[in-house]
Amino acid sequence: MHLLVTWQDLSDKDLQQIEEKTGATILKGFTEEEAREYAPQADVILGGFGAASVLEAAVKCRWMQTPFAGVESILAAKWGNPEMILTNGRGSFGPNISEHVLGLILSFNRGLHLARDQQNQRVWQPRLPIPFRELTGSTVGILGFGDIGRHVAKRLAPFDCKVEGFRQHPSEGVHGLDEFDSFLPSLDYLVCALPETSKTIGFLHKDRLRLLPKQAIVVNVGRGSLIPTDDLILALEEKWISGAALDVTSPEPLPKESPLWTMPNVIITPHNSGFTAHLKKRSLQTFFANWQHFIETGQPQINLVSASLGY
Amino acid sequence: MHLLVTWQDLSDKDLQQIEEKTGATILKGFTEEEAREYAPQADVILGGFGAASVLEAAVKCRWMQTPFAGVESILAAKWGNPEMILTNGRGSFGPNISEHVLGLILSFNRGLHLARDQQNQRVWQPRLPIPFRELTGSTVGILGFGDIGRHVAKRLAPFDCKVEGFRQHPSEGVHGLDEFDSFLPSLDYLVCALPETSKTIGFLHKDRLRLLPKQAIVVNVGRGSLIPTDDLILALEEKWISGAALDVTSPEPLPKESPLWTMPNVIITPHNSGFTAHLKKRSLQTFFANWQHFIETGQPQINLVSASLGY
Repeated sequence: MHLLVTWQDLSDKDLQQIEEKTGATILKGFTEEEAREYAPQADVILGGFGAASVLEAAVKCRWMQTPFAGVESILAAKWGNPEMILTNGRGSFGPNISEHVLGLILSFNRGLHLARDQQNQRVWQPRLPIPFRELTGSTVGILGFGDIGRHVAKRLAPFDCKVEGFRQHPSEGVHGLDEFDSFLPSLDYLVCALPETSKTIGFLHKDRLRLLPKQAIVVNVGRGSLIPTDDLILALEEKWISGAALDVTSPEPLPKESPLWTMPNVIITPHNSGFTAHLKKRSLQTFFANWQHFIETGQPQINLVSASLGY
Repeated sequence: MHLLVTWQDLSDKDLQQIEEKTGATILKGFTEEEAREYAPQADVILGGFGAASVLEAAVKCRWMQTPFAGVESILAAKWGNPEMILTNGRGSFGPNISEHVLGLILSFNRGLHLARDQQNQRVWQPRLPIPFRELTGSTVGILGFGDIGRHVAKRLAPFDCKVEGFRQHPSEGVHGLDEFDSFLPSLDYLVCALPETSKTIGFLHKDRLRLLPKQAIVVNVGRGSLIPTDDLILALEEKWISGAALDVTSPEPLPKESPLWTMPNVIITPHNSGFTAHLKKRSLQTFFANWQHFIETGQPQINLVSASLGY
């Protein structure tokens, strides 16, 4: 069995552990060139990246595991083996992304971004040019109620706020997307954690942003394509909403000339909400569980990606 | 009955409501001069400030209610009526100060302060010069387990961390201060929410800071005097601890020349963790409840300050 590893974060010690646990022949392809060279031999790919040229060359690969959650670029590529099964890293990011989301909400509530600007100028000024806010008594909408959304909801629970979850496939206590618009006027915060699919691109457009109340803060940790950038800028400029915290933008990196960088009611983080010291451990747990099942049955067991759903 | 009001945040509408609910004659003393002039007539003070000259002139005042939690300056003054009862605002600040504390911890975990610096320079750089951290699996000590400490513990509960509370008078599940030192080596975060009393000044000195592990982050939202400033600077410079988030400093305002302003592992907020849009509502609730009891029994009922304890 040949296992192509393209995840550059793995150390030689990690690779050794993988070799011991799987018994596979490890093909280390940390550059696109190396990976493309080894791809035709690969039975399995443990991928940090899924460059189109590598996927196309992987003609006999039966399974690819990526440590990340977003798979739109892998799905968009042409696969050397159209029957390849793709599994992703969902389930690894809930704890850290929910900390990122709460950190962004609380930064707005407490003006921590403005206090940081003051600190950089050695200014001690307790009153800030924003109203202090509290989650207490407020309503938080979570658009995209998968692993990340559920972790956010769990961490919000003791803040004495109301949480409303929305997802494509509603379940007990979670609304369907068809109900979303009717809730918009009641949301003090809207946390977006949707994957990029044909249905989510442009979903939070200006007609929806306009339905939010003036005090609303939008937090996006899913994909930047969810919100048309011009619509978001308009909503902020016209004060339809009171602020936005963006870990994802469209495009990325955010261009130097974007007005979002300097708007007083915007916090930007550079698509790093997924970074955590625990990622390697969590991802390898998923990989080893899937490997065991793959050896026994020919198929991985958890985190299967549906090409038709896009996640 | 004469009620001297020195809390400048109250509007004329608020004063009218107070007049209606209490039936008292309102003496509005929003400057020290006005307040001192009215003080000799006052039966009760609803105080935003407690300047020594006002307290000394309030010779027949039987009760003073302050909306704030810290009372060290009021207790240090000479009172015109030594029998005056003092009640404070504890219980009003738990929700907002706990949001401030969580916001500071999560800023460190996610590098939000450094992302803000990058934003100001229009830099999109996902990797930051700090390790990303998680509360997951960590231990948080809370030094001072009154209303604020309990609110912090409640909000930390779903972050999958362990919380250890410490207070002068231990109770079910909360340690006494005599146990504090033995826990220091196990704390990944130490949240300080102690009042200023003769026992707390200088309590967290360098011998205690040295017992914390290298990854520890110290958050102080109580009083700056808890930590000798030179000891804190030493601990940060020598990397005994990995960071500090300070809403209170000693002295305040933090002097322009203090090295704390620019240390890479320090976040400063200007003693505003107590600010909340809900303060007036919460404080007046406390005041009206106490007023009712004062009229009926001659004494307020809740939030009594013990001069000997200092809080």
